[in-house]
Amino acid sequence: MAFNIIRAARAVLQVTDLDAARGFYVDALGFVETESDGEHLYLRGLEERHHHCLVLQKGNKPGALVLSYKVYSEVDLEALARFFEEKGFKTKWLEKGSQHAMGRAFRVQDVSGIPLEFFVEMKTVDRLLQRYDLYKGARMQRIDHFNCMVPDVEKAYQFYVNELGFACSEYTVTENERIWAAWLHRKPTVHDVAFMNGDGPRLHHVGFWVSEPMSIIHTCDMLASLGYTQAIERGPGRHGLSNAFFLYLRDPDGNRVELYTGDYLTSDPDFQPIRWDLDDPRRQTLWGHKAPDSWFTEATSFLDGTGLSIPVHPPTLERRKPENIL
Amino acid sequence: MAFNIIRAARAVLQVTDLDAARGFYVDALGFVETESDGEHLYLRGLEERHHHCLVLQKGNKPGALVLSYKVYSEVDLEALARFFEEKGFKTKWLEKGSQHAMGRAFRVQDVSGIPLEFFVEMKTVDRLLQRYDLYKGARMQRIDHFNCMVPDVEKAYQFYVNELGFACSEYTVTENERIWAAWLHRKPTVHDVAFMNGDGPRLHHVGFWVSEPMSIIHTCDMLASLGYTQAIERGPGRHGLSNAFFLYLRDPDGNRVELYTGDYLTSDPDFQPIRWDLDDPRRQTLWGHKAPDSWFTEATSFLDGTGLSIPVHPPTLERRKPENIL
Amino acid sequence: MAFNIIRAARAVLQVTDLDAARGFYVDALGFVETESDGEHLYLRGLEERHHHCLVLQKGNKPGALVLSYKVYSEVDLEALARFFEEKGFKTKWLEKGSQHAMGRAFRVQDVSGIPLEFFVEMKTVDRLLQRYDLYKGARMQRIDHFNCMVPDVEKAYQFYVNELGFACSEYTVTENERIWAAWLHRKPTVHDVAFMNGDGPRLHHVGFWVSEPMSIIHTCDMLASLGYTQAIERGPGRHGLSNAFFLYLRDPDGNRVELYTGDYLTSDPDFQPIRWDLDDPRRQTLWGHKAPDSWFTEATSFLDGTGLSIPVHPPTLERRKPENIL
Amino acid sequence: MAFNIIRAARAVLQVTDLDAARGFYVDALGFVETESDGEHLYLRGLEERHHHCLVLQKGNKPGALVLSYKVYSEVDLEALARFFEEKGFKTKWLEKGSQHAMGRAFRVQDVSGIPLEFFVEMKTVDRLLQRYDLYKGARMQRIDHFNCMVPDVEKAYQFYVNELGFACSEYTVTENERIWAAWLHRKPTVHDVAFMNGDGPRLHHVGFWVSEPMSIIHTCDMLASLGYTQAIERGPGRHGLSNAFFLYLRDPDGNRVELYTGDYLTSDPDFQPIRWDLDDPRRQTLWGHKAPDSWFTEATSFLDGTGLSIPVHPPTLERRKPENIL
Repeated sequence: MAFNIIRAARAVLQVTDLDAARGFYVDALGFVETESDGEHLYLRGLEERHHHCLVLQKGNKPGALVLSYKVYSEVDLEALARFFEEKGFKTKWLEKGSQHAMGRAFRVQDVSGIPLEFFVEMKTVDRLLQRYDLYKGARMQRIDHFNCMVPDVEKAYQFYVNELGFACSEYTVTENERIWAAWLHRKPTVHDVAFMNGDGPRLHHVGFWVSEPMSIIHTCDMLASLGYTQAIERGPGRHGLSNAFFLYLRDPDGNRVELYTGDYLTSDPDFQPIRWDLDDPRRQTLWGHKAPDSWFTEATSFLDGTGLSIPVHPPTLERRKPENIL
Repeated sequence: MAFNIIRAARAVLQVTDLDAARGFYVDALGFVETESDGEHLYLRGLEERHHHCLVLQKGNKPGALVLSYKVYSEVDLEALARFFEEKGFKTKWLEKGSQHAMGRAFRVQDVSGIPLEFFVEMKTVDRLLQRYDLYKGARMQRIDHFNCMVPDVEKAYQFYVNELGFACSEYTVTENERIWAAWLHRKPTVHDVAFMNGDGPRLHHVGFWVSEPMSIIHTCDMLASLGYTQAIERGPGRHGLSNAFFLYLRDPDGNRVELYTGDYLTSDPDFQPIRWDLDDPRRQTLWGHKAPDSWFTEATSFLDGTGLSIPVHPPTLERRKPENIL
Repeated sequence: MAFNIIRAARAVLQVTDLDAARGFYVDALGFVETESDGEHLYLRGLEERHHHCLVLQKGNKPGALVLSYKVYSEVDLEALARFFEEKGFKTKWLEKGSQHAMGRAFRVQDVSGIPLEFFVEMKTVDRLLQRYDLYKGARMQRIDHFNCMVPDVEKAYQFYVNELGFACSEYTVTENERIWAAWLHRKPTVHDVAFMNGDGPRLHHVGFWVSEPMSIIHTCDMLASLGYTQAIERGPGRHGLSNAFFLYLRDPDGNRVELYTGDYLTSDPDFQPIRWDLDDPRRQTLWGHKAPDSWFTEATSFLDGTGLSIPVHPPTLERRKPENIL
Repeated sequence: MAFNIIRAARAVLQVTDLDAARGFYVDALGFVETESDGEHLYLRGLEERHHHCLVLQKGNKPGALVLSYKVYSEVDLEALARFFEEKGFKTKWLEKGSQHAMGRAFRVQDVSGIPLEFFVEMKTVDRLLQRYDLYKGARMQRIDHFNCMVPDVEKAYQFYVNELGFACSEYTVTENERIWAAWLHRKPTVHDVAFMNGDGPRLHHVGFWVSEPMSIIHTCDMLASLGYTQAIERGPGRHGLSNAFFLYLRDPDGNRVELYTGDYLTSDPDFQPIRWDLDDPRRQTLWGHKAPDSWFTEATSFLDGTGLSIPVHPPTLERRKPENIL
């Protein structure tokens, strides 16, 4: 169980227009707005007790500021910070209160350069799971996972699995048996984080869980009614990989979010990761329209503490887009 | 085609508290409030262009004021009025403008004493079918049918089928082959009106059509969240008769409405009405909990033009409640 | 009501391999196989009492043999035949028994050259609406409509509306106010037949009605599991026009079928047809992926009585494919 | 993490007629029959890789033979056995191969007298999650939880939480703040096991997870079509407690199973168990019909190794059925 990381817990994204973001995330998708100020929107899903799972922070360009994981205890948190430091990673502690609604946390860039954050405590608020009168749009339930493009998936895989204690549920290999993409989890679902071969590090999307497929169909209808038809980038469809019934959206700044349902339980220690060939046509899309090029090439830059984009590197594996995909 | 009656088109119900009615019908069930004044709420479903399909009129007690049918043309309307008059029924014309948003209409009490209204023209408004952003609660689509308890179902059946040109889709007989209940239609669905043996004439319920079963499940969740759990009288379940996936609700005044989906097409002239034995356990409830006694005994009185209750008579067939129902 | 045509009732398609057709229509889509012989499959939906709504007839190439409409009575049928003859159309009577399970019928090519058939009587069989244990795949309920490409939509429109008594629910116009496509109905749904501008006459698709959207999602899953992923040509998505939640499939011979739900009631004589501009992006697709070129260009040839393809003519309106569609 | 118990993994029930059981569980509910012999049916859900999650064993009366939990490793398994032995519980090891498809396991009666089994290894088989062509009935996905009536819920609660390392998600208290029922989990869902105050130990039901609500509606339709209407004891409805959309069924021997969807994530260590008052009407039933008496009084006896019923004791808390429940 290594460092007792519990789960993917929040993302902090930069957006250029908070009102536009509110229109999309709150009015159309149905996120709960826990709180906001002139610089931030703090959003959560209907079943969540954490103060937020998504922070939208006003800035001069889109970007991803940090991906945060919840850890079991303060003891684990310190052990994890020590681990990073001993490995030569530079950690930075943010004391309780320095981030709204958050206990203390430390930040670190992982082996791929992705800015991570680990914390134990977040302010809790009322769960709205049974306030069905407040359900609207996608009836968003909770954050589920992060998906990142990285230049070296195998390096990321080794670090998360061997060092941080993640388990692999599914993975994709090239014809040379190199890992092209991997789905890794701490909570017993398909993933808390996935890595795909590509220019990186970049955030491909944040995935949010909805409780049944009709929520996704209604989301499409809602988006069309509200003038957001162009926000639908891909789907609805079914991934072979993960079995997810999915919908990919681009927010007004181009950040990508996935609505996701159809996962399965991965609790068992003798679970055998599912292997997919990169060119298996059912891998990407069990059924559904061909993904547009943008889905393979566009992603959100990570920003460092000063607001600058973290440098992006080309991938180590040559092939960047599967052939023969549907 | 007889008198070219098109369909069940609106009901006018009396309620004692318009704010309470709005809370139930608009906020919880998702009817569209086309218009209101201090005495009336005019409601419609999301796909309807008619100004309203349900008028809730303030009064000192609950009651049903009139059931209205739309007729093809003014020529048909006049022919229908003449028909009633020649048969000795007393008709009363209401000129255009005397009822809000309505063209001229005539009223008449049918063979069971039910106050009916026939009209051609109603003001039309925008259809909101594709305003998915306005969908809530039951996502109510349109009025579907009336269900009345009458003392002599066979008399009502003969009049509607032989004189008014309705067709029968399904019916229930006693062990002596007497018609205990009948489902009659003009539009090619299961019914525009149904008659059941019982103390009458009384309005058992007005049925509204929703487009898919999950709308009914979500309605239950919504009602529970808003404190209306007691409003759920029966269901969700499936009727053998009509194949409807149903939910019966009581409004704050006790008037009963049905949410209804799962109907079938009855357009064909060689359609053979489906015969059910009264004690066939699948007739009432293909599956679902036993209906409470209130569902068999309680109904809304019809009111005459002066606001008095139209007299209720005991039924001609002895048995008032099926045995062995689930 | 003109000639009392009731509804679109059956299509007869030619396929090259009956076993392949059975695998697709019966095993995957869930049509009920009423009967078959070495040359024909007779299929129906779960709610249908007619012996069939789709005949698949073995032949040496794909093609559409006839589109059949049910008529109210033999008197109407004869009047309709006389009407065609007086207009100079060549009719051909097929006596009862000459087509399996069919009463007498006459055939005629309409103004666009489409082979039509009109009949009153078809053998009836058990309705399986409440045999939920037999539901599978798309849980196909009933035939809904035909969609044809014709060279002159306005000519077809005038003939069906002014001569045959169809009503228009929705239509599309070019920037010059020419009718580019029209949706026409006899039963009070959006359509029994639609015409689109294009090389024709050709059959674009036969539409079948399913009762709720999850049937369409499950169909996609089923098709993927059974190796029919390539059969999904377009969708799932929502048309602005008709409000249908749709899925377009190509059968093993390339004939196109639509699964269709989300329609609305068009019973009212004062219903105003809905007008769409050809380049309104929401017309074709309220949401959903861009239709592939094949959807605009490929269609099934009609066959004449000798098995030869009925000649196809280029359309009168220049523009064959909407711009700016999603 | 105590003894690293992973999750509720299988139940072994005794039934009197294997063919009747197959008709119910396989044909109607859609369990996958992994294997069977003259004495056993081995069933699993569509997403499961374990050889089975439910064994139906032929016997002369209904009964529950054992509830099995999967444990992380053989080291944990031995530590757990030692723990029980040191506490004075009598354990019995069953070597690998002595139970079909199972690795070694040990059995023990818990503090309430419930026969438990712990194991690490079970034979794995193909997962059928993406074989949508095999989906039928309830489209059963996986085992979720056990629910047991015990005479002393607080004793069971203390043992499972303080000794075995379960966490509590929700619980019900009497007006004297005594625990009347508790929902406990190892995997991060609402429960792996629940205990309710009553004559016990008895098995109230085994809960199975389905992926979306329409599966439950279709199950009701299927059961009605196949003549199992009487098998529906309670539901569909929504529990306030756990937020489950539920359906309770009785198998041909009277054993109770629950179809269950609508759960939430309970991964966080700072999750605060949800407290319900016993007489809160929303606790049992957020909405849905009143549970029948049988649901509160009837349950399945546990059987000991010799096939005798394990003695049942009256509960320590006086009140056995909530008042004011819906």
